[in-house]
Amino acid sequence: MAASSSSFCHKNALSLSTPSNNHTKLTSRDSSLRFPPSISFNAPRFRVSLLSKSNRNLILKASATSAAPAMDQITSSSSSSEVPTSVEVDLGNRSYPIYIGSGLLDQPQLLQKHVHGKQVLIVTNTTIAPLYLEKTIWALTDGNPNIKVESVILPDGEQFKNMETLMKVFDKAIESRLDRRCTFVALGGGVIGDMCGYAAASYLRGVNFIQIPTTVMAQVDSSVGGKTGINHRLGKNLIGAFYQPQCVLIDTDTLNTLPDRELASGLAEVIKYGLIRDAEFFEWQEKNMEALLARDPIAFAYAIKRSCENKAEVVSLDEKESGLRATLNLGHTFGHAIETGLGYGQWLHGEAVAAGTVMAVDMSYRLGWIDDSLVQRANKILKLANLPTTPPETMTIDMFKSVMAVDKKVADGLLRLILLKGPLGNCVFTGEYDRQALEDTLRAFCKS
Amino acid sequence: MAASSSSFCHKNALSLSTPSNNHTKLTSRDSSLRFPPSISFNAPRFRVSLLSKSNRNLILKASATSAAPAMDQITSSSSSSEVPTSVEVDLGNRSYPIYIGSGLLDQPQLLQKHVHGKQVLIVTNTTIAPLYLEKTIWALTDGNPNIKVESVILPDGEQFKNMETLMKVFDKAIESRLDRRCTFVALGGGVIGDMCGYAAASYLRGVNFIQIPTTVMAQVDSSVGGKTGINHRLGKNLIGAFYQPQCVLIDTDTLNTLPDRELASGLAEVIKYGLIRDAEFFEWQEKNMEALLARDPIAFAYAIKRSCENKAEVVSLDEKESGLRATLNLGHTFGHAIETGLGYGQWLHGEAVAAGTVMAVDMSYRLGWIDDSLVQRANKILKLANLPTTPPETMTIDMFKSVMAVDKKVADGLLRLILLKGPLGNCVFTGEYDRQALEDTLRAFCKS
Ligand SMILES: NC(=O)c1ccc[n+]([C@@H]2O[C@H](COP(=O)([O-])OP(=O)(O)OC[C@H]3O[C@@H](n4cnc5c(N)ncnc54)[C@H](O)[C@@H]3O)[C@@H](O)[C@H]2O)c1
Ligand SMILES: NC(=O)c1ccc[n+]([C@@H]2O[C@H](COP(=O)([O-])OP(=O)(O)OC[C@H]3O[C@@H](n4cnc5c(N)ncnc54)[C@H](O)[C@@H]3O)[C@@H](O)[C@H]2O)c1
Ligand SMILES: [Zn+2]
Ligand SMILES: [Zn+2]
Repeated sequence: MAASSSSFCHKNALSLSTPSNNHTKLTSRDSSLRFPPSISFNAPRFRVSLLSKSNRNLILKASATSAAPAMDQITSSSSSSEVPTSVEVDLGNRSYPIYIGSGLLDQPQLLQKHVHGKQVLIVTNTTIAPLYLEKTIWALTDGNPNIKVESVILPDGEQFKNMETLMKVFDKAIESRLDRRCTFVALGGGVIGDMCGYAAASYLRGVNFIQIPTTVMAQVDSSVGGKTGINHRLGKNLIGAFYQPQCVLIDTDTLNTLPDRELASGLAEVIKYGLIRDAEFFEWQEKNMEALLARDPIAFAYAIKRSCENKAEVVSLDEKESGLRATLNLGHTFGHAIETGLGYGQWLHGEAVAAGTVMAVDMSYRLGWIDDSLVQRANKILKLANLPTTPPETMTIDMFKSVMAVDKKVADGLLRLILLKGPLGNCVFTGEYDRQALEDTLRAFCKS
Repeated sequence: MAASSSSFCHKNALSLSTPSNNHTKLTSRDSSLRFPPSISFNAPRFRVSLLSKSNRNLILKASATSAAPAMDQITSSSSSSEVPTSVEVDLGNRSYPIYIGSGLLDQPQLLQKHVHGKQVLIVTNTTIAPLYLEKTIWALTDGNPNIKVESVILPDGEQFKNMETLMKVFDKAIESRLDRRCTFVALGGGVIGDMCGYAAASYLRGVNFIQIPTTVMAQVDSSVGGKTGINHRLGKNLIGAFYQPQCVLIDTDTLNTLPDRELASGLAEVIKYGLIRDAEFFEWQEKNMEALLARDPIAFAYAIKRSCENKAEVVSLDEKESGLRATLNLGHTFGHAIETGLGYGQWLHGEAVAAGTVMAVDMSYRLGWIDDSLVQRANKILKLANLPTTPPETMTIDMFKSVMAVDKKVADGLLRLILLKGPLGNCVFTGEYDRQALEDTLRAFCKS
C-alpha cells in the first residue's frame, strides 16, 4: 500500500538522542498501526522506548535522561558573530534546522546558506512589510549581488487565507519567471507561513521554502511540522500539503512589535507543551511567565527553543498526524468549538485554546485522572499569561456538542480527546472515557 | 539539505529486475548530482548498472537481459476471472500497480481492493460521465454496500484545467463531508487525471487516489509517474504536486469510444518510448501499427503495458525530474513551441509532439548522431499512425526560437534538448550540440 495521510502510521522504533545545549537531533523509524482507541503518552522527553504495541494500546514510556539546560546556560545571540541556538527537525532527507535568537536577521550569511538558486520570492503582508521587508531583503542580498529578490504583499488577516489570495503568489512567481530552483520565503505569522508553504509546495510542483515566523504562534507552533494550507469557505485548513522548509529562522527581535493579545495567544501553545509532555518546561514557565510577558529576549529564546524541540520531537515521530501528533491539540477540540461558535476572528486561536485547555483539564480531573493541584496550576499559569480560562458567556452546551460531533478526531462515531492523565506532563489521546465527565464539564462551563 | 524538486537528484545505484511476463518490479536507491550538461541514455531496459558518475556525465549502460514477451504471450483479459496484466511502479512505500486489460471495469474486486475507507469521490467530465460513470460506480459498489460514492462532473476541455474548476472538486468533497480516509477516483483523460490527482494531493493535505485513464495519452503517459496539476493563465501545468496513486486501472475497452484523432495523439507517446529507449518495442510497433489503429485489444494491452513499463522504469529511477526523466520529452520542446505558436487546442498534444519528434530526429541526423535509416523509420511510423510529420505552415523560425528561449530545460542560458544518438533506442539529454544544426533544422521545417 502506498503511504498517504490516511494510512495511519505510528512509529515503533524510536531513538531520541539526549539534547546538547545548542542542538537536538531526533531520529525515528516507522511502522504502522491503525486508529488505536486510546494512546497514552507519558512525558516522553529525550529518551523514548516502545514497551508494548497492540491493536488497542501504544504506550510510549519515557525516562528523562538529562536535565533541561538551565536558563542561565542559554546564550543570547545579540552579537551577530555568535552561533545561534538551533533545533534540528529530523525527517530523513527532509530534515532541516530551526535557528532561534535575537538579531538573526542581522546575520545575512545564516539565511543565505539556505537559499538555493538565484531567485527569491518573499511572501508577506501589509502589516509586516513596513516593519521587516526591507531588512529581510537586505539579509538576502547583502554580499550576494547575484540574487534577484521579488516580493508579494498580501492583505492581512485569516479571512484572506484562501485560494484567491494564494493565486496572487502564483501570479507574482510566474510573472517574475521564477524557475524550479527558486526559494519562497514566508515572512510573517501563521497565516503567511501556511499560505506561502502551500504555494511553495505547489509552484512548479514544489520549490525551496524558508520560514521567517514573526508571531509567537508561528515561532512555537505553525512554522514547525510542515503543515501548510489554506481555508475553504466551508472550513479551516481543508486544502494544503505536508511540505517541509529548508530552514526556519526565528529572530526574537520581531516580537517587539507584536500586539500584546497576539503575544499571549502564542503563549497558550507554549503552556500546552508543558502540560502534555514536558513538566520541567512547565515549571520553568511558572517561574518565568513575567519575563516572557516583558518580552525578555533570553527568556523568549529559551521558551521558543524548548517549544520547537517538543514539537519537532513529536513531528519526527509522527509526521503525517496519527496518534502522537494529535496530542498537540490539547484544548483544541473545545477551543475549536469556541472559535466556530463565536465566528472566527472574535477570539484569537490561542485564546480559544486557553479556555479549551481549562475545560480539558477540568474533564481530566472529573475522570479522576489528575490531581486537583494540577488543575490549579494550569488555571494559574494561563491567567498569568493574560489568557481567558472560561469560554465566552454566549457559548451553550449545544454549540459545543454540535461542533464536536463533526470534529476530525471522531472515528467510528467516537470523539477522541486529548486529556491529561497522571502527573504533570502526561496525556492520553482516547475515545475511552466516561461520557458523563464530558457532560459535567460542559455543564460547568456553560450557562445553558 | 531537505529534498525538493529543485535539488536535482539522480540515482547512482540501480537494480532493475528482469521482468516476468505479467509483472515488472523496479527498485532504486538514490544519491544526488546537479545539472550535468549532458546525459546519455543507452537503451537501459530491464537491467541497468551505473558505470560512472561524475559532475559532467551520468551514463546509464544497459544490457538487455530478456527478450520482450512476444505478443502471443500476452493474454487478453476478456474473461473477468483472469489475473490482469500488471506493471508495478516501484517508489518505495509509495509503490503501486498498474492493471491493464480488456474488461477490467467488469471486475469490481480489482478496484475495490485499492479503495481504503468508505467514501469515494469520482471526478470525471461531461463527455465521459454518460459513457462510463455508471459502470464505475457499479464496480465500486457491487458486493460492497457500505461504500458511499459521490461524483463531480466537470466541463470537458484543457481550458477548464484551472483553479476555478479544481475548486468544484473541493466543494463537492467538503459538502459530502469526505474525511482523510476517502478515495478520489479520476475517470477520464489526462486533463481529469491531472486535476483529480492534484485535488487528492491537496484535500486535507492528501487523500487516497486511483486513476482510471480512458485515453491512450492518459493510459500510456499521464496516469503514470505522479505528476499532477493545473494550468495558470500564463502557462501550462505550473501549479501542482508530485502525488502517486494507490493504483491505476486501465480498461482498454474504454478506447472504443475514443475519437480517432485522440487515439493517434496518444500513439505519438508510444512511438516516443521506442525511439528513446526501447528498440524492440519500436520494431514491434512497426509491425503492429495497423492493429493498434484498428483498436485490437490485445495489441493495445501490449502497447500500453510496454509503454507503462518504460515510463515506470524511468520514473522509478528519477521520480522528481532530473536528467533521465527529461528524456520522456523527446519532441516536446519543438512540440511545445507548436502548441504555443498555434494557440492551445488547435493541434492535439500528441500531434505537436509528432511533428516535434521529426524535428528532433532531423537535428540528431544533422549532428551526425544517427543514421539516415533511423530518420526514415521515425517518419514512416508517425505517418502510419496518422500523425503530422511537419509543423503547421504558419510556424516561423522566430516563433520556435521565442518559445524555446523560455523552455524549462534552459539552464544557465543553454537550451538542453533530447536528441537521438547511436542506434535505435538511444538518446541524450544535452546542451552540448552545434548551434548550427538547430538553425538548419528550423530553417528546413519553416517557410520563414
Ligand atoms: N501549520 C500549522 O501547523 C499551524 C499551527 C498553528 C496555527 N496555524 C495557523 O496559523 C494561523 C495563525 O497564526 P498567527 O497567530 O501567527 O496569526 P497571523 O499570521 O494572522 O498573525 C497575527 C497578526 O499579527 C500580525 N503580525 C505578525 N507578525 C507581527 C510582528 N512581528 N509585529 C507586528 N504584527 C505582526 C499579523 O499581520 C496579524 O495581523 C492560523 O491560520 C492557523 O490556522 C498553523
Ligand atoms: N501528468 C502527466 O505526466 C502528463 C503527461 C502527458 C499529458 N498530460 C496532460 O494530459 C492532458 C492531455 O490528456 P488527454 O490527451 O487524455 O486529453 P483529455 O483529457 O482532454 O481527453 C481528450 C478528449 O477525449 C475525451 N475522452 C476521454 N476519454 C474518452 C473515451 N474513452 N471516449 C470518448 N472520449 C473520451 C475527453 O473528454 C476529451 O474531450 C494535458 O492536460 C496534459 O498536460 C499530463
Ligand atoms: Zn493551536
Ligand atoms: Zn507528451
